[in-house]
Amino acid sequence: MRALVLDGQLKSQSDYPDVEPRPGESIVKVLMAGICGTDLELARGYMTYRGVLGHEFVGEVVESADARLTGRRVVGEINAGCGHCDLCLAAMERHCPHRTVLGILGRDGCFAEYLRLPDRNLLAVPGTMADEVAVFTEPVAAACEILEQTRIARNATIAVLGDGRLGAIAAMVLKANDYAAVVGGHHHEKLARLNEIGIAGGFEADLRPGLDVVIDCTGASAGFARAIELVRPRGTIVLKSTAAAAASLNLAPRLNDIVVNEISVVGSRCGRFAPALDTLASGKLDVTALISAVYPLEDGIAAFAAAADPSNLKVLLKLS
Amino acid sequence: MRALVLDGQLKSQSDYPDVEPRPGESIVKVLMAGICGTDLELARGYMTYRGVLGHEFVGEVVESADARLTGRRVVGEINAGCGHCDLCLAAMERHCPHRTVLGILGRDGCFAEYLRLPDRNLLAVPGTMADEVAVFTEPVAAACEILEQTRIARNATIAVLGDGRLGAIAAMVLKANDYAAVVGGHHHEKLARLNEIGIAGGFEADLRPGLDVVIDCTGASAGFARAIELVRPRGTIVLKSTAAAAASLNLAPRLNDIVVNEISVVGSRCGRFAPALDTLASGKLDVTALISAVYPLEDGIAAFAAAADPSNLKVLLKLS
Repeated sequence: MRALVLDGQLKSQSDYPDVEPRPGESIVKVLMAGICGTDLELARGYMTYRGVLGHEFVGEVVESADARLTGRRVVGEINAGCGHCDLCLAAMERHCPHRTVLGILGRDGCFAEYLRLPDRNLLAVPGTMADEVAVFTEPVAAACEILEQTRIARNATIAVLGDGRLGAIAAMVLKANDYAAVVGGHHHEKLARLNEIGIAGGFEADLRPGLDVVIDCTGASAGFARAIELVRPRGTIVLKSTAAAAASLNLAPRLNDIVVNEISVVGSRCGRFAPALDTLASGKLDVTALISAVYPLEDGIAAFAAAADPSNLKVLLKLS
Repeated sequence: MRALVLDGQLKSQSDYPDVEPRPGESIVKVLMAGICGTDLELARGYMTYRGVLGHEFVGEVVESADARLTGRRVVGEINAGCGHCDLCLAAMERHCPHRTVLGILGRDGCFAEYLRLPDRNLLAVPGTMADEVAVFTEPVAAACEILEQTRIARNATIAVLGDGRLGAIAAMVLKANDYAAVVGGHHHEKLARLNEIGIAGGFEADLRPGLDVVIDCTGASAGFARAIELVRPRGTIVLKSTAAAAASLNLAPRLNDIVVNEISVVGSRCGRFAPALDTLASGKLDVTALISAVYPLEDGIAAFAAAADPSNLKVLLKLS
């Protein structure tokens, strides 16, 4: 089958081995997939991943032992836990130490004609929801996770650092939940686009300190240092940035600031899909406004180049 | 008057200028004072402080416009806010951006015959409480702050990193509040002393990962890196370490662990004195068991050397 494969470098292959059935797992024909910052980091060597890239998708179940799934249009939780450890039993499969992660860790991803995921990871997409919306379930879940992990006062002053894909979606989810958040970015075009679709934003350098909550979606450890400058004493920083190229920043003096100002830092990664699907179904998020380009899988290399262009927001792959 | 003064280096002076009255502030004759890790850091250059050192004390009010205070034995909150800003008005004077801090920031400290603090900072000590107990109010408040800032499950697995003064007091406060905490340290003598007084502890290298809560009282940024290794996914790290000599550790890769494992990090510094005095009055903490030595103020330089000796716990100064 055709697939975008990371093997030292990113390759578009037409002869990648077909997905084989496995007990408890369904085979899904991919309809649409999204390229995210983590994919770009993986392609640069983060986590030394080898295999098919991609973890944001909507697809159709073509083979499953679960009759309720066969033929259904689905999205899928990307972490597949062992099912036996304490974390899995506590419904925290996404922290299972033995987990595989779609397109990130030990499991081929969704930038391919077909993928395989455990039956229990798959959620049916409402019939009325377009593929172009459902494909945003994973990043919307990651943004919803912010509100699951923190208790933010209704009138809190909130900044989202980073005008990229995740920053934009985080700001949208906050707005949909009646929080007023401002995006602080570096890219005039993206900030203008966000303003067009009703997301307040401006240059990060213009943000004023004293904020109640700062959400770092920059994808760089410099964002963390900036968040510490911007948050008020006793305020909260939500860290969403995973990054490979973070090795050179000395953050030790910032630890002192965290203690002296009694700041809380909350690491936040993946979220649950069910509330994210509900949020998308509510129609409160205009996620399709974030789509900068759609490429066929065959043009995956060009799609990656477009996703790496800082003037673009979301780049999708559409499979025929 | 006699004072231990930091002026590039630590000096014992007998001719330090007397404390002058100031409106809204009381003059306190110091009875007993404690040397803490922050004092040792300040003497090494942290925060470039100049003046009389010391912030842990019990004393007697000898001059005050507040008749209820005159002649009373008191302890005192060390942060003096401006009284006008949003943080002061929200009872968070200890985060006032214009604050002075006794013996730490812009205000002479308690390693002297007399000190001055705002009337509102002073709390009367119960008549039945010995000076040797009351002098622990400040570090006990800092330890109580951990439980004010976090919500720890009753059956949580908790490690305190650092077998020094603050680590020991944190473990005592947790125990007094019915939490089971284990101290992880490096010093055989101190760990043995803690075990004698009923605090569980052992070598930090023997701690096993997967802990619900890790409290870093090491005074070094390496403690933070170790805490990240030890805490479970979705667990909590409480950071109590402020340190000058933290500049060389690269923590950026650890940020990635915080995000991937969705760890919460809570910076924690000073606490409120009233609940700390109540805790001491309850008799649940055997703080005097932590006293390694008592020196007269005249021997302050020797007292500092004793406090810096890693085999010692608390070193006190007693004024005649």
